[in-house]
Amino acid sequence: MQLPSKLIENAVQEISKLPGIGKKTALRLALHLLRQDSKQTQSLADALRAMREQVRYCKTCYSVSDDDICHICRSEKRDKSLLCIVEDIRDLLAIENTNQYNGLYHVLGGVISPIDGIGPEDLNIDALLSRVKESEVVEVIIALNATMEGDTTAFYLTKKLRESKLKVSAIARGVPIGSELEFTDEVTLGRSITKRISFE
Amino acid sequence: MQLPSKLIENAVQEISKLPGIGKKTALRLALHLLRQDSKQTQSLADALRAMREQVRYCKTCYSVSDDDICHICRSEKRDKSLLCIVEDIRDLLAIENTNQYNGLYHVLGGVISPIDGIGPEDLNIDALLSRVKESEVVEVIIALNATMEGDTTAFYLTKKLRESKLKVSAIARGVPIGSELEFTDEVTLGRSITKRISFE
Repeated sequence: MQLPSKLIENAVQEISKLPGIGKKTALRLALHLLRQDSKQTQSLADALRAMREQVRYCKTCYSVSDDDICHICRSEKRDKSLLCIVEDIRDLLAIENTNQYNGLYHVLGGVISPIDGIGPEDLNIDALLSRVKESEVVEVIIALNATMEGDTTAFYLTKKLRESKLKVSAIARGVPIGSELEFTDEVTLGRSITKRISFE
Repeated sequence: MQLPSKLIENAVQEISKLPGIGKKTALRLALHLLRQDSKQTQSLADALRAMREQVRYCKTCYSVSDDDICHICRSEKRDKSLLCIVEDIRDLLAIENTNQYNGLYHVLGGVISPIDGIGPEDLNIDALLSRVKESEVVEVIIALNATMEGDTTAFYLTKKLRESKLKVSAIARGVPIGSELEFTDEVTLGRSITKRISFE
């Protein structure tokens, strides 16, 4: 597709570098911006630039933050004996939204993935290990996705964390609330039987 | 969902103003940009801003162009007796990609839509009417989407263009090439029978 304007072509090229956005969607977005007031494009460009240049990461948990220490790490109300390990801040937000967890977090910034060339040294794992040594943390909850990479990372972390004599757990896997057994995939259903929970 | 950084919140807000992008996708895109080199965000912001501020519209056909007159209007090789009316440049590009049309275009910039408060005066219709009067155009081909708004606009244009004694046609509607009669919707199939094409 040859575009009639180099400026649009350039914008489409840049937009389509975003994940999940192809050339067609990028063109639709570019044309949308052209139809809107130019202020909208300006504030979009400004917001993106400001975010990328000024955002900081919490020095304790590596979540994003506008300050050196994020509001969760600073809070007096959180249970400092619990530490939940997540891949990125989307997972952190998802857990926060449940209102069921009141401990602290540690954001890894990814998972171990040899195919993508991501090893333990590329993640915030060293920081995690020295963090738990000096802290009041008693239990570490691993909340990674149940993918090959997530499981590999969980296995690696468990080995490392057990050296520090910490209790290590993982979030429960099983049949989601509200879904029917009949339509649950075999792996989940199988695991929900082998890892069944006893009534106490 | 409360985000831990005002900067990200701001970026997510701006990104989610784009059509078809909700808060969740916007957050995914923002976090993606944070993981990438800051140069990527910079060139995206620059490309958007440059496009919005510097892009120009062809003074003849209202397609986007880096010059006053676009390359199609300037071309010596195009058939100047044919004029195809499209809603926006996406439709123009779609027709160009067929390699079946060698005439000129006129971009309306939208369709008549009373619900959205868009009347004929908001579109490039006056420019079209004065353009065809002074030009070598013999036939006008209306290539608008088969929606209520598209049909309304086509009806309005036909009435106006017939006053100038021009031949007016519309792109053929019917069963798409390669699709099966059985699965074609009734409206399309019905129209393909009433507007059947005789073998000559």
